[in-house]
Amino acid sequence: MKIAIINGPNLNLLGRREPHIYGHTTLGQIESGLSEVAKELDVELECSQHNGEGELISAIHALTDSADGIVINAGAYTHTSLAIRDALVGVNLPYVELHLTNIYAREEHRRRSMLAEDALAVVCGFGAYGYELALRGLVSTLRNRG
Amino acid sequence: MKIAIINGPNLNLLGRREPHIYGHTTLGQIESGLSEVAKELDVELECSQHNGEGELISAIHALTDSADGIVINAGAYTHTSLAIRDALVGVNLPYVELHLTNIYAREEHRRRSMLAEDALAVVCGFGAYGYELALRGLVSTLRNRG
Amino acid sequence: MKIAIINGPNLNLLGRREPHIYGHTTLGQIESGLSEVAKELDVELECSQHNGEGELISAIHALTDSADGIVINAGAYTHTSLAIRDALVGVNLPYVELHLTNIYAREEHRRRSMLAEDALAVVCGFGAYGYELALRGLVSTLRNRG
Amino acid sequence: MKIAIINGPNLNLLGRREPHIYGHTTLGQIESGLSEVAKELDVELECSQHNGEGELISAIHALTDSADGIVINAGAYTHTSLAIRDALVGVNLPYVELHLTNIYAREEHRRRSMLAEDALAVVCGFGAYGYELALRGLVSTLRNRG
Amino acid sequence: MKIAIINGPNLNLLGRREPHIYGHTTLGQIESGLSEVAKELDVELECSQHNGEGELISAIHALTDSADGIVINAGAYTHTSLAIRDALVGVNLPYVELHLTNIYAREEHRRRSMLAEDALAVVCGFGAYGYELALRGLVSTLRNRG
Amino acid sequence: MKIAIINGPNLNLLGRREPHIYGHTTLGQIESGLSEVAKELDVELECSQHNGEGELISAIHALTDSADGIVINAGAYTHTSLAIRDALVGVNLPYVELHLTNIYAREEHRRRSMLAEDALAVVCGFGAYGYELALRGLVSTLRNRG
Amino acid sequence: MKIAIINGPNLNLLGRREPHIYGHTTLGQIESGLSEVAKELDVELECSQHNGEGELISAIHALTDSADGIVINAGAYTHTSLAIRDALVGVNLPYVELHLTNIYAREEHRRRSMLAEDALAVVCGFGAYGYELALRGLVSTLRNRG
Amino acid sequence: MKIAIINGPNLNLLGRREPHIYGHTTLGQIESGLSEVAKELDVELECSQHNGEGELISAIHALTDSADGIVINAGAYTHTSLAIRDALVGVNLPYVELHLTNIYAREEHRRRSMLAEDALAVVCGFGAYGYELALRGLVSTLRNRG
Amino acid sequence: MKIAIINGPNLNLLGRREPHIYGHTTLGQIESGLSEVAKELDVELECSQHNGEGELISAIHALTDSADGIVINAGAYTHTSLAIRDALVGVNLPYVELHLTNIYAREEHRRRSMLAEDALAVVCGFGAYGYELALRGLVSTLRNRG
Amino acid sequence: MKIAIINGPNLNLLGRREPHIYGHTTLGQIESGLSEVAKELDVELECSQHNGEGELISAIHALTDSADGIVINAGAYTHTSLAIRDALVGVNLPYVELHLTNIYAREEHRRRSMLAEDALAVVCGFGAYGYELALRGLVSTLRNRG
Amino acid sequence: MKIAIINGPNLNLLGRREPHIYGHTTLGQIESGLSEVAKELDVELECSQHNGEGELISAIHALTDSADGIVINAGAYTHTSLAIRDALVGVNLPYVELHLTNIYAREEHRRRSMLAEDALAVVCGFGAYGYELALRGLVSTLRNRG
Amino acid sequence: MKIAIINGPNLNLLGRREPHIYGHTTLGQIESGLSEVAKELDVELECSQHNGEGELISAIHALTDSADGIVINAGAYTHTSLAIRDALVGVNLPYVELHLTNIYAREEHRRRSMLAEDALAVVCGFGAYGYELALRGLVSTLRNRG
Repeated sequence: MKIAIINGPNLNLLGRREPHIYGHTTLGQIESGLSEVAKELDVELECSQHNGEGELISAIHALTDSADGIVINAGAYTHTSLAIRDALVGVNLPYVELHLTNIYAREEHRRRSMLAEDALAVVCGFGAYGYELALRGLVSTLRNRG
Repeated sequence: MKIAIINGPNLNLLGRREPHIYGHTTLGQIESGLSEVAKELDVELECSQHNGEGELISAIHALTDSADGIVINAGAYTHTSLAIRDALVGVNLPYVELHLTNIYAREEHRRRSMLAEDALAVVCGFGAYGYELALRGLVSTLRNRG
Repeated sequence: MKIAIINGPNLNLLGRREPHIYGHTTLGQIESGLSEVAKELDVELECSQHNGEGELISAIHALTDSADGIVINAGAYTHTSLAIRDALVGVNLPYVELHLTNIYAREEHRRRSMLAEDALAVVCGFGAYGYELALRGLVSTLRNRG
Repeated sequence: MKIAIINGPNLNLLGRREPHIYGHTTLGQIESGLSEVAKELDVELECSQHNGEGELISAIHALTDSADGIVINAGAYTHTSLAIRDALVGVNLPYVELHLTNIYAREEHRRRSMLAEDALAVVCGFGAYGYELALRGLVSTLRNRG
Repeated sequence: MKIAIINGPNLNLLGRREPHIYGHTTLGQIESGLSEVAKELDVELECSQHNGEGELISAIHALTDSADGIVINAGAYTHTSLAIRDALVGVNLPYVELHLTNIYAREEHRRRSMLAEDALAVVCGFGAYGYELALRGLVSTLRNRG
Repeated sequence: MKIAIINGPNLNLLGRREPHIYGHTTLGQIESGLSEVAKELDVELECSQHNGEGELISAIHALTDSADGIVINAGAYTHTSLAIRDALVGVNLPYVELHLTNIYAREEHRRRSMLAEDALAVVCGFGAYGYELALRGLVSTLRNRG
Repeated sequence: MKIAIINGPNLNLLGRREPHIYGHTTLGQIESGLSEVAKELDVELECSQHNGEGELISAIHALTDSADGIVINAGAYTHTSLAIRDALVGVNLPYVELHLTNIYAREEHRRRSMLAEDALAVVCGFGAYGYELALRGLVSTLRNRG
Repeated sequence: MKIAIINGPNLNLLGRREPHIYGHTTLGQIESGLSEVAKELDVELECSQHNGEGELISAIHALTDSADGIVINAGAYTHTSLAIRDALVGVNLPYVELHLTNIYAREEHRRRSMLAEDALAVVCGFGAYGYELALRGLVSTLRNRG
Repeated sequence: MKIAIINGPNLNLLGRREPHIYGHTTLGQIESGLSEVAKELDVELECSQHNGEGELISAIHALTDSADGIVINAGAYTHTSLAIRDALVGVNLPYVELHLTNIYAREEHRRRSMLAEDALAVVCGFGAYGYELALRGLVSTLRNRG
Repeated sequence: MKIAIINGPNLNLLGRREPHIYGHTTLGQIESGLSEVAKELDVELECSQHNGEGELISAIHALTDSADGIVINAGAYTHTSLAIRDALVGVNLPYVELHLTNIYAREEHRRRSMLAEDALAVVCGFGAYGYELALRGLVSTLRNRG
Repeated sequence: MKIAIINGPNLNLLGRREPHIYGHTTLGQIESGLSEVAKELDVELECSQHNGEGELISAIHALTDSADGIVINAGAYTHTSLAIRDALVGVNLPYVELHLTNIYAREEHRRRSMLAEDALAVVCGFGAYGYELALRGLVSTLRNRG
Repeated sequence: MKIAIINGPNLNLLGRREPHIYGHTTLGQIESGLSEVAKELDVELECSQHNGEGELISAIHALTDSADGIVINAGAYTHTSLAIRDALVGVNLPYVELHLTNIYAREEHRRRSMLAEDALAVVCGFGAYGYELALRGLVSTLRNRG
């Protein structure tokens, strides 16, 4: 089983960008930590990060016949991009929407998600630890289905 | 460390109520499974379920000096009850909002949560397994803070 | 065949509460009248009234394996309670929404019903006589289905 | 006592139009059935159907000194016609608004009625049987007033 | 110079329909009074009344090469009919929108006019006398332009 | 009988301000013309113009026991001033709302009037001639009442 | 195969009505041109135009067992008539919604279509030529289905 | 004269719950202070607090023939409960709506009151002292009426 | 301690303006009564009334170094004036918003206050007696702070 | 004459992505078919597809002096991208907006187009065949203008 | 060339009013600084400040034949006054809208400007220095036009 | 001190794109002019332009440790891109939002800015000259802070 971890715009700044909101862990540290969990769960991981909407779409397309599920933190595109949702639905892979912060406790424009309606599940507010929970939840659900 | 698992209206029907939406696991089975996880995490659990808004409020009040955090699935009150939010904030305990289904993939009136704004985190869409993820996330966050 | 007649908050005041709006018939008199109709229709009746939302939910749950349909006048909860609708849908029984007054001729906040979307039918504006019409309509529909 | 049964646009298609929604009974069959009920109730009936808004208005005007009440299923005009409401109020006759389906369980634009605010009562969701209930309710109310 | 006076749905009821709102003057009396004013102003009048939207449209079309301006009281169609506005604009004749009552002092749905945006002028609230004012205003404006 | 003609902010610019919209007639010329009509109608006139909201309110108060009705063109305050409406209602005098232009054919924010709801009548779109129509309509209505 | 071309209110004015918007081609010329295309496509055409909503509904009903598809330009009723949509759905024939102008480039109230939701397809902005495109598209789709 | 002081959900936490918002005075201290004022005013007091909506409704019903007026702080139900308003109107007793904080200076969802429309008066923002002002205002008003 | 009592537009009409709504007490009588209360409370009063928004602003500015708090009934400006709120905040004095009537029981446009968000407290619905309550509440709060 | 056919995000998936909605024809097959039509019409074609918004903008810029018109299916960017509209207007080329599906019969967020307001025309709902209709319509319009 | 600098309500408090928001510079200091810039630019300045809406309107009228452009900081009237906009448009002078703070970073009701739609330009957020920028921008634009 | 000048989509067309709106100056000319101003102000400039959202984000990230402030004209992304705002806030640099035109005088969808809420200041409507004003304002503010 192979799971893609996809991160969107500005997440390359993690650890430096507004640490009082997003914490001090860098994206590299998160990805390293997820590798450990992936080993425990016996799944293959593929991690990527893109600032461009079109690049994210192409990255999702590239998973068509190679991945079994996606954990996606689309950053600010979560709230504006119908095209990323179309890409996720187009490749027909179950995905978990993930946010570091509790988006419902933030500004109004961060409370509406364009992706959530077709997601398998949503996890937000646990900081970097949320990636692990999303990965565990996705793998567990896929194995129960299989 | 003691965690309260609080379930709201109609969740006593779990396993029988609309199983195509909510699954076949009963609330009793969920609570049993959580006991196992609690042991692994070395935390004490206290589970309860109430159909009444006032009873839920009183149950939350009763946790004031005895619990360290709450996992709450407030059912339909999630979308209408400001009083439960006041109770949660009033006892000053961190709480995770939990839903069996992905509420953002359902009817419009299930997409707005009255509780989310003050929650620590939100987990939805993983079915019964979500309780375990919410519990793990809450305990992990509390231990990192302590 | 058994039909439950469920009345919600403030309907115990019937006959005394704002009689220029709700009429002078008491709830007891309405229930007595319905007994006569039930005999004519050869159905069993079970009548109850509750002021609490949680109590109404529990009363609906209790009908799970004993009733064939429900006539419900949920009073003001009609306009605010998603939890009662969940209970009605959860026990999987057809129900008729009933109002003494024509709610569409009243204040704005009484024109939106949280229950109507999943109801079998709606009757309003006939005063106490509406209960009889709702009962006849429900029984007729159930017999045509059976 | 004389009651007018007025049907609006597309109801002449009844029995053939979208039978999964509106049923297989034709308008002629409904009117025949109502004649039986009218005899039992000892009232005179006058039935008509029109596709045009102006024709419905003129038909309502024609009842001015001849009818005592109206059961009206204005079809789609229910949701758009202020002029039919003006006609109904203009002839100063009590009327019951009737719909075959539960309009609150359908598309958004069928949930708002232009006629309901001045109606005596509303009945919807009982299919063809609803006409009988509306007729009984209207006659009962008129006799209690008289 | 020839002016058309066009009245819409339910205005044939004038004098009998809700006289506390619309007064006791009949449409015939209004038209007679306007004839006197027309003589004084030396203009030709053509009066008509229709309950149907399509008939009003056709009546407006018929004025294409024969009238110089229109005073129109479109009744309830004022608030719902884009097609009548298209007809008025289509024949390219200046028109005055007229209402017996002050529509801004009435129900919300009578405050929006579909016709006003392309009208020359609007007069409302003067009862039957408003027709005379509208006629005088229209003739005066046309003569100042000519 | 005495009628007050009250003009609001910027109407002192009439004849110079945006003449393609408001015409070339000055306020002085309008007031002179109205004097002629007043003589014909045998009523006394009192004309004033103020740019300040508070001054308009005080001017309206001053009419309490001296005028029988008001023709008011409140200019832009029409769309924003609840206080002027309170003043008009407070002195308990019937008033006609007057606009030079057809306000419904202009920008959105000029289509809502704060004054119309309590006005006797509204006249707009006839340019300077509208003052005469408003005056005739007001006097005629007052004499029919008296 | 037989296709109905149905035109709504004011389209009889085509060629004369606001030619800067709708062009100089008359409806007769359009229908003649379509006859040529119909011959090329080997389909039978039936063209009609009505100003009344009720007449359009009746005309649609009359196609029940005789036509295979409809090209409809419902004019201003496009934006207001739920009853015409009910008629189109009631006769169960695929239809293409057609507009001479690009309705999305016009006033706000012309951008919402009541018919589009159940239409097979929509064509707008090509002027008179759009009828030919709509006819070709409808015939092609029907033949691919058959 | 007898006045009921009714407190709603979470007010039993007063003094401990968010003291930076609600202050350090407990509900018991407030009720004691009110007893002193009641003596001064020579009125009888009856104080109660409930977390449940249904219990509050029943408590209000119980006042039917025993109290002359109500001071109610319905807590969060203020913003959501139509049923409590129905109960207050149903027992036909004048009531003052009271809030510790200035609810208009808080979150959006605390600015709308379901109870205010039928209240005699509203007092908010004076903290615990507001109960005394509400009581004085209610008694004064009742005595001026009597 | 010095308190300013500021009244806005139309309040000079008090006692004569719509007495069924605002009562028969004049502003002079209210101010006299308040003098008595001020003596009892040992505070200095300064009362003023202005119809103009700018004059009210200047009056508020003049209090900068002379008053300790303000009771303000801004009349209709309450609902429209951001500038008065800026003045109140600009002089940095705590103020109580006061209304004679329960503004929440009146027309929609009187339910929104521009001033409330920065007010210390709000009192409405007690008629003239409300001024006394507002004064007592303000003085009590200021003394508890001092 | 040269026409550009521009396709946006996810259209490279055509034939594989949700074929029950978008059909089984691939983008390559559509472009081949259009070549045939282009030959018949004697126009030059230039086809491209991009997933990125910025790439689409640059592709549009590149047409500045080389193309005469554009057929654009901007996919999900249709509903969110003001920047693409600016690019289309910036190069001053007439364009036809094209959709495979009837976007008005789909989810709410697919019904609003950011591009339509400045488009020459819109075609939607004919599947792959729509490209041919859009091309024919665009060429016909350009030749009639030329 | 002569430029008017017009300041609205509460700006006379500048330097004392909420200095954490508006800074410590007084209006007199700003006007002195602008004199220096005016000399450098070789333009004449005329500065004024008014708290009243009517006074601001009259001040604008007085510029009719004497000024070439206006820099206006209308304070809170920016967000509510259509009458000031009418005055500015009425005297037909180009104006720059100026704010000390970035109004888009403040409360919702300070984000909408009634004046901006007809302004030449808008500058906000630079504090007192913004007046200089606005003056430079206005003069530069006027000289490029001349 | 180093300032970045960042331009977004379609601004490479400047001078050719809709010159009646955006003027005839090219982006190259603007950047040359700014170099002169930068010399005068003794600051270093770095200018760039990108059509892609992701490329703009990456360009902003690249400024992290090299620039002191940003002048950004994000073109149409101003109104839709939350991700660019996140990038600007993420690198923690003060920025001025700049527009050539007065965006408040244009279409509704150009009046809302996603960037303004976190900007230091906003300048719009001065055409190409606005860049100079924005630069001067930014440098002045930074130097006053330092």
